Amino acid sequence: MSVGATETGAAVTDTLLGELAAELSAEALVTDRDVIDAYSSDKALFCPVGQAAALVRAGGVDDVAAVMRFATKHRIPVVTQGARTGLSGAANAVDGAILLNVAKLNAIIDIDEVNQTCRVQPGVINQDLKMTLAGHGLSYPPDPGSVAISTIGGNVATNAGGMCCVKYGVTKDYVRGMTVVLPDGTVTKLGRQTAKGVAGLDLAGLFVGSEGTLGVIVEITLGLRPLLAAPVTGVGIFPNMESAGRTVTEFMSSGAAPSLLELMDGATVGMINAYGDFGLPDEVGALLLVQSDAPGQAGVAELESFQAIAEAQGAAEVFFSDDPADSEMFVAARRAVSPAMEQYVAGLGGGELIDDVCVPRSRLGEFFARLADIAAAHTVEVATAGHAGDGNMHPSVLFDASDEASVAEAKVTFAEIMQLGLDLGGTITGEHGVGYLKKDWLGRELDAGAQSLQASIKSAVDPLGILNPGKMLG
Amino acid sequence: MSVGATETGAAVTDTLLGELAAELSAEALVTDRDVIDAYSSDKALFCPVGQAAALVRAGGVDDVAAVMRFATKHRIPVVTQGARTGLSGAANAVDGAILLNVAKLNAIIDIDEVNQTCRVQPGVINQDLKMTLAGHGLSYPPDPGSVAISTIGGNVATNAGGMCCVKYGVTKDYVRGMTVVLPDGTVTKLGRQTAKGVAGLDLAGLFVGSEGTLGVIVEITLGLRPLLAAPVTGVGIFPNMESAGRTVTEFMSSGAAPSLLELMDGATVGMINAYGDFGLPDEVGALLLVQSDAPGQAGVAELESFQAIAEAQGAAEVFFSDDPADSEMFVAARRAVSPAMEQYVAGLGGGELIDDVCVPRSRLGEFFARLADIAAAHTVEVATAGHAGDGNMHPSVLFDASDEASVAEAKVTFAEIMQLGLDLGGTITGEHGVGYLKKDWLGRELDAGAQSLQASIKSAVDPLGILNPGKMLG
Repeated sequence: MSVGATETGAAVTDTLLGELAAELSAEALVTDRDVIDAYSSDKALFCPVGQAAALVRAGGVDDVAAVMRFATKHRIPVVTQGARTGLSGAANAVDGAILLNVAKLNAIIDIDEVNQTCRVQPGVINQDLKMTLAGHGLSYPPDPGSVAISTIGGNVATNAGGMCCVKYGVTKDYVRGMTVVLPDGTVTKLGRQTAKGVAGLDLAGLFVGSEGTLGVIVEITLGLRPLLAAPVTGVGIFPNMESAGRTVTEFMSSGAAPSLLELMDGATVGMINAYGDFGLPDEVGALLLVQSDAPGQAGVAELESFQAIAEAQGAAEVFFSDDPADSEMFVAARRAVSPAMEQYVAGLGGGELIDDVCVPRSRLGEFFARLADIAAAHTVEVATAGHAGDGNMHPSVLFDASDEASVAEAKVTFAEIMQLGLDLGGTITGEHGVGYLKKDWLGRELDAGAQSLQASIKSAVDPLGILNPGKMLG
Repeated sequence: MSVGATETGAAVTDTLLGELAAELSAEALVTDRDVIDAYSSDKALFCPVGQAAALVRAGGVDDVAAVMRFATKHRIPVVTQGARTGLSGAANAVDGAILLNVAKLNAIIDIDEVNQTCRVQPGVINQDLKMTLAGHGLSYPPDPGSVAISTIGGNVATNAGGMCCVKYGVTKDYVRGMTVVLPDGTVTKLGRQTAKGVAGLDLAGLFVGSEGTLGVIVEITLGLRPLLAAPVTGVGIFPNMESAGRTVTEFMSSGAAPSLLELMDGATVGMINAYGDFGLPDEVGALLLVQSDAPGQAGVAELESFQAIAEAQGAAEVFFSDDPADSEMFVAARRAVSPAMEQYVAGLGGGELIDDVCVPRSRLGEFFARLADIAAAHTVEVATAGHAGDGNMHPSVLFDASDEASVAEAKVTFAEIMQLGLDLGGTITGEHGVGYLKKDWLGRELDAGAQSLQASIKSAVDPLGILNPGKMLG
């Protein structure tokens, strides 16, 4: 198998590895094949996994710079990775590459309560940062599904989102500046430390979501918010997805600013109930989870407005609570979608392809109707949850991974869902990124001019094409 | 004078202009020297103004594409401009260039109430858009001082800010996608229409703040907010700037989320009072204007918190009001800073250099103390207003434009203020941009790696260097 190696890349001989080892901190270089293989893929399905030449577990920025100098000198590809929780294969090995793992760079360098900023290394786990910040009265809202296991560096590299986005935005909205190591080993600061700043092109912004194709992020300055207020939480039970979808559309265009608005279809709710007791009803067509953290009576008023709209759109039941225990339970139910689906698909043959399309909120009703048609036309199952307030849905294609026909059907279904997203004026990826998984689809979303511009900028920053070759931009 | 022309640029002969005219809509090409000269500069002082070869007032995207094809073919520089209200010379003519004015592309193409987005052409005046959107229950918060006269295209090209930023962010936070014309005339779409999206490098984001150096923005998709609630407005009167600065630092780190937090020094308040009656007291050391649009009692509570902090920091008086008329009057007072200073400096000899440094909020006290030292060391006056909640201050250097010594002193003072911003961990420009005015300073803010990366990306997008040569990146 030849996966993504640069054509001009030197084979990484033992002699070369010896040269690299001499530049690295002790024990940073790993050549044990089993360990390398264990680090060679992220959580994506159906993405190529190449044979890396070595793994470097960077012990510091110097190690990162040394790897990049070495890689440039010998034209060796480098795949940067952290916790490898990505869903698009962006952290997968390519043939002959050095896997540059920065998970050990996990220091929270500074928390500035006055300026409400922090500086962190890329390997800090999102949830760990959140918990540490809470002790300082601060919050970092972005909360991808992987919040408990993914790193801030990976979140920045994919511009991760989550449930907070409907009110609090995505990772990019919090990144002020960063230190990166460029392909030739140069260490440089991008962006700013201050609340505002327009000195030159916004290169820190360009690196957010760049999936390891431009440089290695070794430090990040994040803007923070005061600790978010405890929300009021509501649950709406709907006879079908279209009714829930119309509720989202109406509610969001009414001037509401919910702090969370999540949707699960009946199949998903069934899997959650089979996984654990989160107080959800059994037979539902669709369920909306909504929160408002508006202060005082405003939060309750916002949920009352949700209730009125939901009932007008055919909701069977709407209830809400300001008891933090209830809020936590319902959010836990939403967070349980992933393990609940895993449990469910284990019985099917273990295959789950999570899609990530984002459409204009006005098109959600049509999206669900056509999604049902797609599911009906195939033998695989489709179960859907997602960030409805943003129009960012995650239909999961569930199939039998041991059956070739089922796998083939799953891939077709997955692709049809992406095409549906594009047909409705949306995007093939709202927050998971392109990586290997969707790179062939990027050309369907971007026009020729944009594709060419993407390639030009990639070449300008990484002229040898050594950073994550074959991912995202192909 | 030779200003910024590309070395390889052809002289723009009448024959060439004839070739261009044939590609343009009727009356788009202007060769009248007086008209060209009238379009040759923005509102910046001390910036070179070159001799442009022609002016094109684009009547449509086709005109823009034709200009760029022509410019690429003949290697002729192009300076894109709108209302020319910028403060850094980015819209100034360069020798032999085509001034490409897009002010006539001023249609609001679409307002989508359900998705809370709009699509606009670049020439739409910010305030016009705001007023139109209000009729749809929507708001576009960014509100630079030039809000009544500047265009959305110019706001995007400089990533404009304003008074809203402390709670509602800058222009970049609202730009989802755009259509741009690349240097070779290719028309391409960048970014997305949806609330979220991570398909490829964020090139729409890269174009925000690029000051006409990468391409010509011909359409913009903006994310909007529901109409903002009427705020409660407070005024704090302080004996000196340090006391006001400490109040900002304390208030902002207390978890407050004011929707406006503006500072004016005593000299500025004096000029405002000489300009009109806005209900401001006469003898003040410094004045803070604060608003909260938090719903219900939360807004009042936030201003009570402000009052307590201000009084603890030595405020002489704090009062607040939820009467919209009062709010409007005080905001009008803040907006009057610009004309009030103009009136004041008319008596001095008419010179005013507005600086735009942004420092961490924690350093504001130190900033004001050292700013006072700078002012005291020079014969020119310094009056300061600014977006204190963001640490983004606009000290204005006031001088006699007819006196060479005064002009020289003003330039030195202006530079010392930028250096002070850098010394305190800040930036030379929070929201006005680099243009000509600060391009020599960009190299002091950016390290060598970042400078080189900026240049590489500029070259990749504009390999002939025809777009706004000599500006920003030099």
